Amino acid sequence: MTTALDHEWMARALQLAGHGRYTSMPNPRVGCVLVKDGQRVGEGFHLRAGEPHAEIHALRDAGVSARGATAYVTLEPCSHHGRTGPCCEALIEAGVARVVVAMEDPNPVVAGTGSQKLRDAGIEVEVGCLEVDARALNAGFIMRMLEGRPRVRLKQAMSLDGRTAMASGESQWITGPEARRDVQRLRAESCAILSGVDSIIFDNSRLTVRAEQLGLDDAEAISARQPLRVIVDSQLRMPLAAACLTEPGRTLVVAVDGMAGPRRARLEDAGAEVIELPAGGDGRVDLTVLLGWLAQHEQCNELLVETGATLAGALMDADLVDELRLYVAPTLLGSEARPLLALPGIERMDQQRRLEIVDIRALGQDWRILARPEKK
Amino acid sequence: MTTALDHEWMARALQLAGHGRYTSMPNPRVGCVLVKDGQRVGEGFHLRAGEPHAEIHALRDAGVSARGATAYVTLEPCSHHGRTGPCCEALIEAGVARVVVAMEDPNPVVAGTGSQKLRDAGIEVEVGCLEVDARALNAGFIMRMLEGRPRVRLKQAMSLDGRTAMASGESQWITGPEARRDVQRLRAESCAILSGVDSIIFDNSRLTVRAEQLGLDDAEAISARQPLRVIVDSQLRMPLAAACLTEPGRTLVVAVDGMAGPRRARLEDAGAEVIELPAGGDGRVDLTVLLGWLAQHEQCNELLVETGATLAGALMDADLVDELRLYVAPTLLGSEARPLLALPGIERMDQQRRLEIVDIRALGQDWRILARPEKK
Repeated sequence: MTTALDHEWMARALQLAGHGRYTSMPNPRVGCVLVKDGQRVGEGFHLRAGEPHAEIHALRDAGVSARGATAYVTLEPCSHHGRTGPCCEALIEAGVARVVVAMEDPNPVVAGTGSQKLRDAGIEVEVGCLEVDARALNAGFIMRMLEGRPRVRLKQAMSLDGRTAMASGESQWITGPEARRDVQRLRAESCAILSGVDSIIFDNSRLTVRAEQLGLDDAEAISARQPLRVIVDSQLRMPLAAACLTEPGRTLVVAVDGMAGPRRARLEDAGAEVIELPAGGDGRVDLTVLLGWLAQHEQCNELLVETGATLAGALMDADLVDELRLYVAPTLLGSEARPLLALPGIERMDQQRRLEIVDIRALGQDWRILARPEKK
Repeated sequence: MTTALDHEWMARALQLAGHGRYTSMPNPRVGCVLVKDGQRVGEGFHLRAGEPHAEIHALRDAGVSARGATAYVTLEPCSHHGRTGPCCEALIEAGVARVVVAMEDPNPVVAGTGSQKLRDAGIEVEVGCLEVDARALNAGFIMRMLEGRPRVRLKQAMSLDGRTAMASGESQWITGPEARRDVQRLRAESCAILSGVDSIIFDNSRLTVRAEQLGLDDAEAISARQPLRVIVDSQLRMPLAAACLTEPGRTLVVAVDGMAGPRRARLEDAGAEVIELPAGGDGRVDLTVLLGWLAQHEQCNELLVETGATLAGALMDADLVDELRLYVAPTLLGSEARPLLALPGIERMDQQRRLEIVDIRALGQDWRILARPEKK
């Protein structure tokens, strides 16, 4: 049984976990608080893969005070030997009396083994305290563990009449600086950014995190990690002079099997990494295969999609979008401007794609709408 | 000088004025409160044209207690003899000591004459208490007085990707019952509803207020007055069997000069009133002329536009839309569906039509956005 006080301490642990928002990937964001006699005696969070887990930081912070304490951990402590020793053993050795866990390890193969190890050592374990919040914090990591693909968030900046650019492609800027800063933070918390080669050809998008636009204290440290840029380029039309190829971070160009050809070497010389994946029914890169590849080979938890109507529509049509993130500017771009999503197959009202709106808020003069597509 | 107490009483007067929201047209909505020794001694509002004004109701309510009282009136009392005697004289005769007025008469010819008549009789007069709210309550009436045209509110129900119907025209229903009820109330507070003949041909729109959908206690009384239906029909293609022709209330069909021809008599037999107005540069009914006509001949304060993308876009293009009222459903209708507004001339970002968002709120699963176009 958990109490209101348990919830309060777990809320603190979740807050700590959030410090890893921009840096912990591919690991989950995890926070830990150690409490004894109603007093916090230690706390910590997981900052970067390869560095100590949250529990280890908290135990070091607490020292001998950990003996007899309650540990609040936002994710079930690990029982396996990874790059760091298993946290379960550390908690047992430190003499912790009780462990409150927000959620089980999402990996079904190991779920529950950490809690069992603690129980076997005589420690009282409670699971499920503020679980909804804990799941939201690591939605991408959970998706990768359960579905073998990253969580896909599709971002579009649009006018109130649902348009993303002039017919010519001109689009700078539909939204104001507050919305663009929010997009920068969204990039910074993503493992990878997916775009189509047309966005590179026509807009020369850089798809980078820019420290000066984050508006965060630790912006320099955050932008030291650039999300992987993934360019869907079925026919390998990527320009050798694309700006993103010389930016910090990696650019992965994804062609259809057998399409890379002689251009591949030149693109690699220009700074790209090139892979070939099977085509789907439409002759383009199979998007389901691509997402699986990114989960497996790049440990990609959170994939941000910033692209044009065609690729965005194809992802939506394939039921691969987990969240639509629309930045809506108070403007009309007119009926000749580019549509939000190419969804050409909808002819009857009963074929509409219903959404669940999760959140609406003002960002300067613009509005941000978060919506979840209902699965087909 | 007005005090916080004055504001409080004026707020009550504004609340009373709102009781005329669905019925006072073409007159403004006006409320009045009489206060003596800190006590309310009478109040009233203007319910219907031809019936007593708010001040008269309040004076009757107060009886002899009106002597020495302060009158709070949301609009400058009239000084002219209309269908009822001038309210100024009634206030003077009743011995009112002070009159607090929210706003001057918007008609520039008579503005200030009522206040002056009161002052001449030795009554203290304050003007401008809660003026912003008073102006909002009668925005259409003020527009007609100042500009000689009704206030134009353009309503559209749309998907999140800015679409109003399938390519086939199918659109029932994009929004849910709460949004549709809000539209019913919007119709009920409008003097007239403007639509294009294509909406009649393809949707057979009835454009009526339906008592059972208003969700108001006095729904039957409100729906006894049906807003004038105005159908822009430059070439007089209106079907004789149109449903709206047999609904309660009047239907005005507006053709281009010389276009009515022999069909006119048959349409009139079917229940329509037909007028001819000059064409604009595009050969269609000149919308500016039409709005002026509606103000002059129909005393139209509030015009609600419920129509397709072409007429809606033409109104927007002519800078004749005062408020966009968008009911946004959490759904995607796709890139082949019908656009919000036909605004074909926009080719560059610097030609975009910027809006000011005034209000956003949830209505069931949908969202209502009120926006004002910035003038060109």
